[in-house]
Amino acid sequence: MQQQISVITLGVESLIRSRKFYEVGFGWKAVFENEEIIFFQMNGFVLGLWDKGSLAADTGREMTSGCGAYAVAHNVPEKNDVQAVMDRLAEAGGQIIREADTPPQGGFRGYVSDPDGHSWEIAWNPAWPIDEDGHVKFAV
Amino acid sequence: MQQQISVITLGVESLIRSRKFYEVGFGWKAVFENEEIIFFQMNGFVLGLWDKGSLAADTGREMTSGCGAYAVAHNVPEKNDVQAVMDRLAEAGGQIIREADTPPQGGFRGYVSDPDGHSWEIAWNPAWPIDEDGHVKFAV
Repeated sequence: MQQQISVITLGVESLIRSRKFYEVGFGWKAVFENEEIIFFQMNGFVLGLWDKGSLAADTGREMTSGCGAYAVAHNVPEKNDVQAVMDRLAEAGGQIIREADTPPQGGFRGYVSDPDGHSWEIAWNPAWPIDEDGHVKFAV
Repeated sequence: MQQQISVITLGVESLIRSRKFYEVGFGWKAVFENEEIIFFQMNGFVLGLWDKGSLAADTGREMTSGCGAYAVAHNVPEKNDVQAVMDRLAEAGGQIIREADTPPQGGFRGYVSDPDGHSWEIAWNPAWPIDEDGHVKFAV
């Protein structure tokens, strides 16, 4: 089976609030939007922000609010970018949940939650190459 | 800022149990593994399965068990593949949470939770092209 994820969908309470976080904080541009969903074309897949109730109904299960056991990471090209991005995200409605520091494996990273509590790691990891299309390769 | 997600990390209780779900169920091959983390090279980013306690400690916050308000999707090339993949995932330790049917926007999809409750949508969406490297494009 193809080693492929097509979509990551985050359930959100308010598309207006979330649009600000993703468009102003990250500076990303939506590729599609209607009254209950926003899609972003990412590096080889699609990120969706979907009304939380609609996502739960589609999935056919209750979804807890707050922070589930997962995280999404955005890697930046320079160490100094980590703090700059975290500050922008905080200004755009995010909350810093871990100040940036050096993890045991090296590099530099901090965590910000989006307005719905989804965990975003902002990381500088010089070992993992990122090409001009944003495609990220595992490397040790 | 680059419109890019580098890593999706799912917190798991048991790497052995999760390895079975992802390697046997999806048929994916890990690119790296140690006693607390498994990485898969995906279509332009990396999927990590990380010991849930270590992920929570790294993130600096408590993480609830069960199902947060998000879902990850794997799109398949043919409508008939949806049920076949869901069955394989269920045999490999997943649980079918929504039987496959046609959503309002068309296509065909069902949902399976992985052994830790992470929601996976298995979808046939003929509108969204997937290239041979697994890169998925938004389209209407």
